[in-house]
Amino acid sequence: MHRVENFKSIIDQYNIIFFDAFGVIKTYQGLFPGIGRTFEYLEQQGKEYYIVTNDASRSPIQLAQSYHRMGLKVITPERIISSGMLTKEYLDLKVRDGIVAYLGTEDSAHYIEGDCRQTLPIRQINESNIDKVNALVFMDDEGFDWFEDLNKAVNLLRRRTIPVIVANTDHAYPTTVKDVSIAIGGLAMMIEKIVGKEFIRFGKPDSQMFMFAYDLIRESRNVTKKEIVMVGDTLHTDILGGNKFGFDTVLVLSGNTQAKDMESRITSTGIAPTYVCDSAVVDLGGLNF
Amino acid sequence: MHRVENFKSIIDQYNIIFFDAFGVIKTYQGLFPGIGRTFEYLEQQGKEYYIVTNDASRSPIQLAQSYHRMGLKVITPERIISSGMLTKEYLDLKVRDGIVAYLGTEDSAHYIEGDCRQTLPIRQINESNIDKVNALVFMDDEGFDWFEDLNKAVNLLRRRTIPVIVANTDHAYPTTVKDVSIAIGGLAMMIEKIVGKEFIRFGKPDSQMFMFAYDLIRESRNVTKKEIVMVGDTLHTDILGGNKFGFDTVLVLSGNTQAKDMESRITSTGIAPTYVCDSAVVDLGGLNF
Amino acid sequence: MHRVENFKSIIDQYNIIFFDAFGVIKTYQGLFPGIGRTFEYLEQQGKEYYIVTNDASRSPIQLAQSYHRMGLKVITPERIISSGMLTKEYLDLKVRDGIVAYLGTEDSAHYIEGDCRQTLPIRQINESNIDKVNALVFMDDEGFDWFEDLNKAVNLLRRRTIPVIVANTDHAYPTTVKDVSIAIGGLAMMIEKIVGKEFIRFGKPDSQMFMFAYDLIRESRNVTKKEIVMVGDTLHTDILGGNKFGFDTVLVLSGNTQAKDMESRITSTGIAPTYVCDSAVVDLGGLNF
Amino acid sequence: MHRVENFKSIIDQYNIIFFDAFGVIKTYQGLFPGIGRTFEYLEQQGKEYYIVTNDASRSPIQLAQSYHRMGLKVITPERIISSGMLTKEYLDLKVRDGIVAYLGTEDSAHYIEGDCRQTLPIRQINESNIDKVNALVFMDDEGFDWFEDLNKAVNLLRRRTIPVIVANTDHAYPTTVKDVSIAIGGLAMMIEKIVGKEFIRFGKPDSQMFMFAYDLIRESRNVTKKEIVMVGDTLHTDILGGNKFGFDTVLVLSGNTQAKDMESRITSTGIAPTYVCDSAVVDLGGLNF
Repeated sequence: MHRVENFKSIIDQYNIIFFDAFGVIKTYQGLFPGIGRTFEYLEQQGKEYYIVTNDASRSPIQLAQSYHRMGLKVITPERIISSGMLTKEYLDLKVRDGIVAYLGTEDSAHYIEGDCRQTLPIRQINESNIDKVNALVFMDDEGFDWFEDLNKAVNLLRRRTIPVIVANTDHAYPTTVKDVSIAIGGLAMMIEKIVGKEFIRFGKPDSQMFMFAYDLIRESRNVTKKEIVMVGDTLHTDILGGNKFGFDTVLVLSGNTQAKDMESRITSTGIAPTYVCDSAVVDLGGLNF
Repeated sequence: MHRVENFKSIIDQYNIIFFDAFGVIKTYQGLFPGIGRTFEYLEQQGKEYYIVTNDASRSPIQLAQSYHRMGLKVITPERIISSGMLTKEYLDLKVRDGIVAYLGTEDSAHYIEGDCRQTLPIRQINESNIDKVNALVFMDDEGFDWFEDLNKAVNLLRRRTIPVIVANTDHAYPTTVKDVSIAIGGLAMMIEKIVGKEFIRFGKPDSQMFMFAYDLIRESRNVTKKEIVMVGDTLHTDILGGNKFGFDTVLVLSGNTQAKDMESRITSTGIAPTYVCDSAVVDLGGLNF
Repeated sequence: MHRVENFKSIIDQYNIIFFDAFGVIKTYQGLFPGIGRTFEYLEQQGKEYYIVTNDASRSPIQLAQSYHRMGLKVITPERIISSGMLTKEYLDLKVRDGIVAYLGTEDSAHYIEGDCRQTLPIRQINESNIDKVNALVFMDDEGFDWFEDLNKAVNLLRRRTIPVIVANTDHAYPTTVKDVSIAIGGLAMMIEKIVGKEFIRFGKPDSQMFMFAYDLIRESRNVTKKEIVMVGDTLHTDILGGNKFGFDTVLVLSGNTQAKDMESRITSTGIAPTYVCDSAVVDLGGLNF
Repeated sequence: MHRVENFKSIIDQYNIIFFDAFGVIKTYQGLFPGIGRTFEYLEQQGKEYYIVTNDASRSPIQLAQSYHRMGLKVITPERIISSGMLTKEYLDLKVRDGIVAYLGTEDSAHYIEGDCRQTLPIRQINESNIDKVNALVFMDDEGFDWFEDLNKAVNLLRRRTIPVIVANTDHAYPTTVKDVSIAIGGLAMMIEKIVGKEFIRFGKPDSQMFMFAYDLIRESRNVTKKEIVMVGDTLHTDILGGNKFGFDTVLVLSGNTQAKDMESRITSTGIAPTYVCDSAVVDLGGLNF
């Protein structure tokens, strides 16, 4: 049985805290109530922290701005590590020129642009430019016509042998307290099955996501995996990925995994966190900031 | 190695011929050239024949009319056995009242109506009637808004534990000589993966399709499986399903499986037809009707 | 929410009862306590009943004998419909001569023999006879050396394009109150994935199993699907398969599905039985036979 | 179409070469003919090289010794990076004490031992020590009884929620020119499906394998991904994994992928190498060393 522990007493044992975004720091309605205290405490204690997210719909700068608008001013762009950043790194290394076709909003596309590369929404691919397409990227579930453009993606991949990158592996995301929306990772999974080709996926639980974050930290200082703890609400992404990479992990019961299902989900999936907490809110013993 | 044989000499050995529709009798452009001769020959010889199709978009009456419009007058509705007919049988047996929500055209929906059952497109499901929905049916890839209505289907299934029927298991279908369209079976596969529930699929290669056809014939006379041969262009549906049910099978190279790939596809899938023919056209030795 | 109902009052509404074997009529230790009363009641009422089982390890005659040894004398071989019988029908129709290689006990193999067919355990396949092998059948998890013979099966399938039949789709079966054993369906699934070919599976939830039973009954009299109810302990085989074929279904909580998990399993899989009962024991109101 | 290029002219463009072992450097019979010249050339040119292998059956020291016995003296243990090393790192970080049960040879087990950890073959797990088991590791397909010990693994995982590590993701490996053997990754995949839990896999194509190698190099000097090329014979492991990590890749036609299938396999999987070469043998223009 997993005992529910106090979040503050756990993070006190680590130097660096990785947070998942949705279900941990924010909800579909805005900031998670009280989460501001957690970041005040981390700043006070001089702890390092990062948001490690499968959200490729916007750049780190835009993601940081959205936290500022919600009232969390401490989140700077360099604190945010997204699966979109891995997509950009991949394209910079492997797809240096030609056209990168994408499914997603313009915001998501700006972000993956390169010097010698043109990014085009898939609706602009036609007979005259199809032979210059060197990659297809699934960025976001918005910004395109599902019927027209998903069919276009299938037919592009039947004619061109090009790498396909899925910048967000999630299959669905919550939109209200009851409802979800199909995410770009769900649409990409369907297209992959239909065309029978192997897509490249970036995002938790894949290790490359954690490695990217780990590498960024090591650019400025020495660190070991034992100093880092990953905090998330989802067993299959945050906890499985964090565990595999060698981090200690905290499952918070404030999002995808509810207290009443926690034990049976851990048992049935075999994915066990190092710790379980009610939420990522630091309880300062009655003191409210 | 599979020898390519003469289609006429094969069907001469059987009393009943089952034909797949697409890639065998018709193409995206109309009737397969010369296929009229095959049905003239069958009529002449007094052979029985059926079209066994995963097309649930229209009723047998409408499907027969479309053959008539293309010039094949001999195809009557009772010659057509579709996965839509199994869907209707299922609903008649198991979902006798309430609302059946569907994704597809109105044409596809008329066909599954029942006396005490209301069929409604999923866009008309809302808070006032969601509790009366007793089944969800995936009929056709047209007739609805993919973004709105696929998301609505996901959320319906998160709130109601109801049977979900997929009336066409195909993942894609050809629209031009080069291009395909995502079929309702592909969309259903995505939703099934996202909601994690088990859907009920009707259509080849599933045995129930062949049983339905076999049963219809046996209503009027005695027959054994050895008298029947299944003719199709697709290893995974027509040939696998026909073989499993105990029929002899003919792979025709006029559709999904091309002559140059035939041998390697048979070897890699392990699905071997009893015979291989260029097409289902009966070659009458120079005589043209 | 699914209400737990009285088993007797349910079967009173049907003319024919299909029973799963394991978890319903028997356990790893012998007969399910009190199940004798159910069959006495059925005999008394003149109801028809069949055991529909994924057990291909023995012939119906041998299976009936094992019920007799346990004390259930009413079970005659013609009451037993097994996935092994479908395997035999398939071979009789499609693999008329040559060698059928098998994994399983000698008992399981006798049963699939044919007049012009030789059945050989896979360990007896070698360079001199490999070219005469026309099918491979997975019958039972016992009777062979897993290391030697599973590797031999893989290499046979790399060299010969032949149909592969899995006579029992179950992945595991219980051996004690706590433990299970890997079943032949689990081993077959591994080999199928490794060789990348498509195997033919017989057994619930596949419709062909129910059709075989339904056909047997119809040989002697007219019957409709509405007269039949399928009783089983497993959502994914008995209930899913029974529902799909159009039968009403009873989930009993005496085997694989326990009372405490029932509701959450139905919700998470979307597989809902028509009725739920504690067990298939007929409660005769205090009368003990 | 992919042009077959000269191996020497490719490696001349990189500072560091990663080699797959099987199908590139060695075959089931010993060293790949002429491969010694490649390593002489690399030494001569002062290039760095590593063997990146999914072979967890032995430690790097033992693997190096086996190359020495075959006549390739330049391969030192520090040149070898195996999926077994990631398994050891995982256990050191996450499973610090208790018992680690394993399937494999004693050689494979010595290697994952830790100071406060006991490694025990699964046959030695029983009622007295099962509660101290903190992990299960799939190391090698030899060294245990498949029937007894695979069943034991299933039942261990039904009773204990513990991490399961698969140290070699391959499903099969070649043993002669025609035959293969089921690998421990194939057995683990079966058990995972049967118990329904999520296992942790180390080995190509997973990025963590490439990261481990990349990190080892960076301990001694600065390097970028552009300086490294991955050479392998298998699209799904070496090429897919190398590509995803951002390395350039060379597919050699000396192992799993044959010249005649190369183009169709690249098209059907969508996995395209940067270069294709006949083998990893350096052709020194008639000069034989």
